[in-house]
Amino acid sequence: MDKNNAAAVKQWLKDHRARCARFLQVLVQENSTRGNESSAQALIIEKCRQLGLTLDIWEIGSEELKEHWAYCCDRQTFEGNPNVVAVLKGTGGGKSMILNGHIDVVPVGDEKNWKNDPFSGQIENGKLYGRGSTDMKGGTAAMLMAMEALIATGTRLKGDVIFQSVIEEESGGAGTLAAVLRGYTADGAIIPEPTNMKIFPKQQGSMWFRITVKGRAAHGGTRYEGVSAIEKALLVIQRLQKLEQERNAKIDDPLFEKIPIPIPINIGKINSGQWPSSVPDLAIVEGRMGVAPDEAILSAQKEMVDCLTELSQQDKWLQEHPLEIEWFGGRWLPGSLNNDHPLMKTLSDSFQEIKGKEPVIEASPWGTDGGILSNVGNTPVVVFGPGITETAHDANEHIILEDLFTASEIIALTVMKWCETAD
Amino acid sequence: MDKNNAAAVKQWLKDHRARCARFLQVLVQENSTRGNESSAQALIIEKCRQLGLTLDIWEIGSEELKEHWAYCCDRQTFEGNPNVVAVLKGTGGGKSMILNGHIDVVPVGDEKNWKNDPFSGQIENGKLYGRGSTDMKGGTAAMLMAMEALIATGTRLKGDVIFQSVIEEESGGAGTLAAVLRGYTADGAIIPEPTNMKIFPKQQGSMWFRITVKGRAAHGGTRYEGVSAIEKALLVIQRLQKLEQERNAKIDDPLFEKIPIPIPINIGKINSGQWPSSVPDLAIVEGRMGVAPDEAILSAQKEMVDCLTELSQQDKWLQEHPLEIEWFGGRWLPGSLNNDHPLMKTLSDSFQEIKGKEPVIEASPWGTDGGILSNVGNTPVVVFGPGITETAHDANEHIILEDLFTASEIIALTVMKWCETAD
Repeated sequence: MDKNNAAAVKQWLKDHRARCARFLQVLVQENSTRGNESSAQALIIEKCRQLGLTLDIWEIGSEELKEHWAYCCDRQTFEGNPNVVAVLKGTGGGKSMILNGHIDVVPVGDEKNWKNDPFSGQIENGKLYGRGSTDMKGGTAAMLMAMEALIATGTRLKGDVIFQSVIEEESGGAGTLAAVLRGYTADGAIIPEPTNMKIFPKQQGSMWFRITVKGRAAHGGTRYEGVSAIEKALLVIQRLQKLEQERNAKIDDPLFEKIPIPIPINIGKINSGQWPSSVPDLAIVEGRMGVAPDEAILSAQKEMVDCLTELSQQDKWLQEHPLEIEWFGGRWLPGSLNNDHPLMKTLSDSFQEIKGKEPVIEASPWGTDGGILSNVGNTPVVVFGPGITETAHDANEHIILEDLFTASEIIALTVMKWCETAD
Repeated sequence: MDKNNAAAVKQWLKDHRARCARFLQVLVQENSTRGNESSAQALIIEKCRQLGLTLDIWEIGSEELKEHWAYCCDRQTFEGNPNVVAVLKGTGGGKSMILNGHIDVVPVGDEKNWKNDPFSGQIENGKLYGRGSTDMKGGTAAMLMAMEALIATGTRLKGDVIFQSVIEEESGGAGTLAAVLRGYTADGAIIPEPTNMKIFPKQQGSMWFRITVKGRAAHGGTRYEGVSAIEKALLVIQRLQKLEQERNAKIDDPLFEKIPIPIPINIGKINSGQWPSSVPDLAIVEGRMGVAPDEAILSAQKEMVDCLTELSQQDKWLQEHPLEIEWFGGRWLPGSLNNDHPLMKTLSDSFQEIKGKEPVIEASPWGTDGGILSNVGNTPVVVFGPGITETAHDANEHIILEDLFTASEIIALTVMKWCETAD
């Protein structure tokens, strides 16, 4: 890599911080909750057009996609809200790099909890506020600014840089899966999800489950004539608590050392009963099962099914009225990259160079589209970004602009090293 | 009691069975669900007018009623749907008797589960079908036919017979409470609720509770950063299960001998969480607490509050985020009459005389307006009626007409003995 070019790229980014912040601001101001991604994508498309990138804009939803094993999506239509990929073609001979960000943001929740309009993009004390600022339009802005810096400084690369602005990450990753199926894979990928500037080579996967527990109704005054679905659901929940302990006892990866429960089983919902003085005849338990970075989704599912089968064998009622287990809604594939993978070294070195200190390397407690990129697209993935983990999905979501600027420098440097400068 | 008169009364009732069935039929055909009691009450009023009884018809809802400690009602208005009391005045010197029935019926539920119109009053194989047939228009018809038999045979009584057709029994007993506050008390009372012809000197009381459990939200992937309201609710439910055991271990009344759980605590509902992959920050548990026949409502409530306070003292989170306990919705006072009370003997003797066998004497697993009559009105109460416990509140509710006819003979005989014939 040409040291002078690196210095020029860094200087360009330092000189254009206001432009970077302004771009993120307008991007946040476009509400891109699920089904409304088009206007934010239009800003992305216009930016890529200005940069002279080769654009690929398409509506996802092919039969191939919908029949793929990793497809997990309940969306009715993708019409009008395209996926966007924009390629900075290399001169040849270098390694390729995917820079992947999702444009969809989660709902704002209760607006009363926001001190300003959730899509204000307001800047205050070095922070930019708004839904999506941290998760993950900030990461997307960092990537696009890094690419602009390379182009503006005339830096030519050997390998391709494939920028992606996908939909549907928050709902199971159909956008990134569609990009993989369209042929977009690479020698490495960075996904700047909000990691607090930590580097996550491994990501916990997860999936949702719904367990239906049957009972038999009776009047509460003679409750012994019925079978309480709530009491049976308690058995299920207690067995799942034990399963969580068993599964986590097996995790020995040092990256999880500081994490109290590396792969939690979260009981997120229970609904049972319609009348205080009736014995409830139905209980629905819903939750999220964490999947270890190097575990197969199907094997995790089997563990839960097996343990609930074992529970049912010890209970006459459950034997005769089997639990129903469904895997519904969201599913995020886990991801795992070896700590000594060259992508890790390249990114860590760049981090060290810009920040003057070692990066913190951990495993992420949540899944990202990295699971699809690595498992389906066979692309090594590292998750690293400027957003704040804790404010993602929360009211008053925000990003620290200084981190955004720093991340764009680290990403630019990493791309230059990974793809190699051409002359 | 004049034996000849008793024979005449019995014979009159045997001769007028068709009339009795026809009266019940038209009574069932008038839908008298809550708020719609007037048309069924009109039939009652007309019948009482024909019998020459002293009628008292009034709309309940006085300030005195609403401020009474035993008042438990969420009804907005009582306008147009009166309480009815009709007195057969005695010659003096005898004991008085209240014959109490409620005119309100519970909703029909899912009509698809009924083989005929829920208000058909259809008679088939000796059974009369329809909402309210068993609970408890059948009982009311039995009482009115018993009174008609006394009047038709010229049987004069020393004590007053106070017939009551009240509203609101199914929703907490405001109708009977209003009658008590209006001055209607007596030396004894029979409430012909559907007991399968068993005699219930004691009745379980009950009340509804709602427990609000707080948690702290977090992402399911880092669930250790939150506090699950579901997990805390489990502690509450388990403690209530233990409380149920403790309370029932103290019940030694032989009337409860055959009842597995004399005073159950039924957990009827739980609702918690909105998202499978979030830690739930709120859980609402609702249920019904049984109250022993001779227990005070307030003392039962205190037992639950105390045991949950004790639980909270052992849990740091619950100490800082106290459980909220509400007593809402329905409440039914318990009732208790000694087995050797003269009313029990009079009723049992009459039963023996008509049926030629001993009655079954048990404690009821549910409350009736008897709790108000005895606790507030200081009137000794026995619950005994022709309806079928199991079909009450259910689809295809029905009554066996033979039991209805027999019950009216038993009630007529009991009244003659209790109030004494005048000559």
